[in-house]
Amino acid sequence: MSLNFPIKRKERQTIVNKANLGMDFEALINESNTYYLNNDIAVIHKKPTPVQIVKVDYPQRAKAVITEAYYKTPSTTDYNGIYKGKYIDFEAKESHNKTAFPLANIHPHQIEHLKRIIAHGGIGFFIFYWQYYNKYYILDFNIVLKYWENSLNDGRKSIPYQEFLDNGYLIQEGYLPRLNYLKVIDEKYFK
Amino acid sequence: MSLNFPIKRKERQTIVNKANLGMDFEALINESNTYYLNNDIAVIHKKPTPVQIVKVDYPQRAKAVITEAYYKTPSTTDYNGIYKGKYIDFEAKESHNKTAFPLANIHPHQIEHLKRIIAHGGIGFFIFYWQYYNKYYILDFNIVLKYWENSLNDGRKSIPYQEFLDNGYLIQEGYLPRLNYLKVIDEKYFK
Repeated sequence: MSLNFPIKRKERQTIVNKANLGMDFEALINESNTYYLNNDIAVIHKKPTPVQIVKVDYPQRAKAVITEAYYKTPSTTDYNGIYKGKYIDFEAKESHNKTAFPLANIHPHQIEHLKRIIAHGGIGFFIFYWQYYNKYYILDFNIVLKYWENSLNDGRKSIPYQEFLDNGYLIQEGYLPRLNYLKVIDEKYFK
Repeated sequence: MSLNFPIKRKERQTIVNKANLGMDFEALINESNTYYLNNDIAVIHKKPTPVQIVKVDYPQRAKAVITEAYYKTPSTTDYNGIYKGKYIDFEAKESHNKTAFPLANIHPHQIEHLKRIIAHGGIGFFIFYWQYYNKYYILDFNIVLKYWENSLNDGRKSIPYQEFLDNGYLIQEGYLPRLNYLKVIDEKYFK
């Protein structure tokens, strides 16, 4: 057992779960988006998972059932919308490591898409959930891009946690919504 | 046979198909969006159809197969993205009538979503394909909203074709892309 992390895995898990009241990262972001929508703050939605539908049954007196379909690779990020007149676009990532986020968890199409969004004047970023620390950070796209491009040139294949401490924006957990990520966006992109 | 429409149904169909080279309305819009993307003009994507996935099989050495899923009601329109720094959002509708577009083909969530988008400073509209005339029109959201609200107050349940002739924006079919709808958006929203 490490002295640095005296909480056992099992206990830590419980703490994390309590903090989230059993809600996973995606549900937390969706809850924020619903709050923003209902309070007329922003219109941000998660995109549906792209699926290639092959076979659909139409049972009598029942709704259509898709009986054969396949997951497709998305061509964008998961979330987009409008906030204070600006186009906003982001991807949510979860890290289970202690010291670094592996870049293998970021897909080339996400990088390409966000590059374009920023070139066209939109706001693009990543929200990271560090499960181990139970902390949420926003990292500007350009920081992620720097590590990404470096990794293609035989550089390190991950983003160190220290980068989040130094240049990330910690999202303070609150009450309503629990994950008020637009507060960080306000400070970073609207000031 | 009507004197106003001297072309028989069968012949008309052929003309329409030739004009489209067999491409349907959605494929035409997707083609435009691909063109805009590849030429760095705009980043606009169709959202995937929302599906509630219930059962997934993982056959050995083969990719996951979704074996039970259901269509879900979307909460937004089909298309959104960024153009010249502005958030853009629209829905595509096809009319098979001659004289009016039935409002029953527009869903309440589409109206609510576009209302919000415009309140937050985005550009929102409908693209209509009038199959009978083989013509494409953009109609500003506020015109559609006027008819929609009127229909809720026992007014007419459709938008007359005349409204498109008077206040719609005809999209001229071209070569690349065939349906250059952003040209109309330029004239209407960026001048």
